[in-house]
Amino acid sequence: MLNELFTPSVQHALDIVGIFVFAISGALLAVRKNFDVFGIAVLAEVTALGGGIFRDVIIGAVPPAAFTDLGYFTTPLLAAVLVFFLHPHVERIQVAVNVFDAAGLGLFCVSGTVKAYDYGLGLTSSAALGLATAVGGGVLRDVLANEVPSLLRWDRDLYAVPAIVGSVLVVLCIRFDALNAYTSAVAVITAFVLRLLALRFHWRAPRAFNRRSSRAEETGAVM
Amino acid sequence: MLNELFTPSVQHALDIVGIFVFAISGALLAVRKNFDVFGIAVLAEVTALGGGIFRDVIIGAVPPAAFTDLGYFTTPLLAAVLVFFLHPHVERIQVAVNVFDAAGLGLFCVSGTVKAYDYGLGLTSSAALGLATAVGGGVLRDVLANEVPSLLRWDRDLYAVPAIVGSVLVVLCIRFDALNAYTSAVAVITAFVLRLLALRFHWRAPRAFNRRSSRAEETGAVM
Amino acid sequence: MLNELFTPSVQHALDIVGIFVFAISGALLAVRKNFDVFGIAVLAEVTALGGGIFRDVIIGAVPPAAFTDLGYFTTPLLAAVLVFFLHPHVERIQVAVNVFDAAGLGLFCVSGTVKAYDYGLGLTSSAALGLATAVGGGVLRDVLANEVPSLLRWDRDLYAVPAIVGSVLVVLCIRFDALNAYTSAVAVITAFVLRLLALRFHWRAPRAFNRRSSRAEETGAVM
Repeated sequence: MLNELFTPSVQHALDIVGIFVFAISGALLAVRKNFDVFGIAVLAEVTALGGGIFRDVIIGAVPPAAFTDLGYFTTPLLAAVLVFFLHPHVERIQVAVNVFDAAGLGLFCVSGTVKAYDYGLGLTSSAALGLATAVGGGVLRDVLANEVPSLLRWDRDLYAVPAIVGSVLVVLCIRFDALNAYTSAVAVITAFVLRLLALRFHWRAPRAFNRRSSRAEETGAVM
Repeated sequence: MLNELFTPSVQHALDIVGIFVFAISGALLAVRKNFDVFGIAVLAEVTALGGGIFRDVIIGAVPPAAFTDLGYFTTPLLAAVLVFFLHPHVERIQVAVNVFDAAGLGLFCVSGTVKAYDYGLGLTSSAALGLATAVGGGVLRDVLANEVPSLLRWDRDLYAVPAIVGSVLVVLCIRFDALNAYTSAVAVITAFVLRLLALRFHWRAPRAFNRRSSRAEETGAVM
Repeated sequence: MLNELFTPSVQHALDIVGIFVFAISGALLAVRKNFDVFGIAVLAEVTALGGGIFRDVIIGAVPPAAFTDLGYFTTPLLAAVLVFFLHPHVERIQVAVNVFDAAGLGLFCVSGTVKAYDYGLGLTSSAALGLATAVGGGVLRDVLANEVPSLLRWDRDLYAVPAIVGSVLVVLCIRFDALNAYTSAVAVITAFVLRLLALRFHWRAPRAFNRRSSRAEETGAVM
C-alpha cells in the first residue's frame, strides 16, 4: 500500500498543512472580492478541498476524505476566521503565504499521484490526477470568484510546471520501484523549490505566437 | 431509515416543489441574460438539480436521483416553458418566487442532510452536504451565467445562514435521537422563516474590515 | 451489450476523432484568450474530455474512460501542440474545424446516450446524458475561459438541437429495438448534418419576448 509512505499521523499532518495554506489563499481572494464572512468560508473550503474531492470522485473513493475527516473540514474554517480578523496582517505576509502555498502544491501533487495509483490508475493518469489534485482547488476558487483561473494565464509565474515535475518524479519512482518516504519527500521538495524559484525569478511559460495577441498587448487590452 | 420521515409520496411532492421553484429562479436569470429557449431550459435544469446531483455524486448514490426519477427531470422543463411564455408575469410576482425559493431552500437543506447521514456521513459532514444541496444549484446557475455567485456576495440578503440553521437543527435532532416528521418539519419551517425574515429586513453578513474595499465602495466600484 | 454497435476498434477510432476536434476548439479559444502553453493544454483536455468524464461520474463508471485509456489523454495534448505551433493556419481553416466539431457533436451525443443506457438509465435520462456528454466539454471550456457558455447564448447558431435530435433518435431506436450499427450511424449523421445546416443558414433559437432585452439590444449592450 503506497499510501503508507509516511506514518499515518505524519501524512495527516502534512495534508492539514496543505489544506490550511490553500484555504488562506481562498479566503484572501474572497476578502479582495468583497465577499461577506460566509463567502470567505465557502471560498476557503472550496480552494482547500476542491482538488482532493475531484480526485476522490474520479477514482471512486466516495465519500471523499474531505467529508469523512472532520479535521479536513474544520481547518479551512479556521483559516477563514484568521483571515476575517487578521487579513491586513495576512496580506502583509504575502511572502509567507506564497511559501506555504508552494508547500501545499508540492504536498498535494505527490499525495494525489500516490492515491490515484493506489486506486488502480495507470502511471500517466496518476500523474495527471496528481496535478489536478494540486491545482484543482485554485481553479475552482477563481471560477467561483468569476476570474480567469490564474493557472491558465500567461502573466502569472509558473504554477503547473512544478506540480507536473513533482507528479512525474513520483510515477518514475513507482515505475522503478523506488517510491518510499525519502524519494517522495524529494519529489515534494523539488516541486516546492521549483515553485519558489518561479516566483523569485518570474519564470513564465510561452504563449502561442500570434499577431492578434501582440497587438492586444500594445494597446494594453490584454484580457 | 431516516429517509422515511414522511410517506414517500409526501417526500416526493416536497422534492418536486423545491425543484420547481429553483428551476423558476434559474429560468428567470436566463431570460435576464438574454439566453435562448435552450439556455433557459439548461439553466432551469442546472439550478434545480445541481445541488442534489452534487450530493449524490459525493455520497456515491449514482446514478443520482435526478437521472432516475423522470419527474425530477421534467419539472424544470415545465418551469422553463412557463417562464418562456409568461416571464413578465413571473417577474411581477417576484415576491411569490422569493417565497417559493425560500421554501425550496428549507426543504433541500433538510432532505440533503438526512440523505447524507443515511449514506453514512458524520453529523458535521451531513450538515455541510445539506447546505451544499440547498445552495449548490444556485451557485452553478450563477457560474454558468458568468456572474459572481450571489451566495458569496455581501450585498445580498442572508441565504446560507437559514440553510445552515436548518441543517444544524436536523443533525441536533439526529444526535439526540429526536428526528421524526414533526421535528424535521420544524427544521424546514425554521430555515424558511429565517430566509423570509432576511429578505424582509435585509439582513446581511459582515465583511472583513479593510481599507481597500471601503475605498471601492466610496467610488462605487464594488465588484 | 449495446456498446458493441461497432467493432471496438472502430468505436475507439471514432471516440479519438471526436476528442481531437473538441480539443482543437478548446486550444483555439485558449490562444484567443492569450493563455500560455499550459493553459492551452489544460483547456484542450477539459474541452475534449469534460463531457465524457461528467457522464462517467454520473453513471458510476469510475475511473472514467478518460483516465484509463492513454489515447484519450494524449490526443488533446497533440491537438494543443498543433494549435500552439500552427494556430494561424488552424484559424484559417475554421471551416474545417467547424465541420470536425459538428462530427464530434454527432459522435458524442450518440455514444453518450448508448453508454448511459448500458449503465441502466431510463430512455429520457439516457438522452439527457447523451446531450450532456456532447455539450459538457464546451460548457466547461467557456466557464474556465470566464465567458458565457456559447451553448446558452441566443446569438450563436443552434448547437444543442442537433445533439438532442441525435440522442432522441438513439432512444427511439432502443425503444423499438432497432439500434444497430446502421441506425446509430444514421443518428450520428443526422446530428452532424443538422449542425452543419445550422451553421450554414445561421439557425437560431427564439428568446423569451421581453422589453428589457429588446432595449439592451438597441443600445448595443447585449450581455
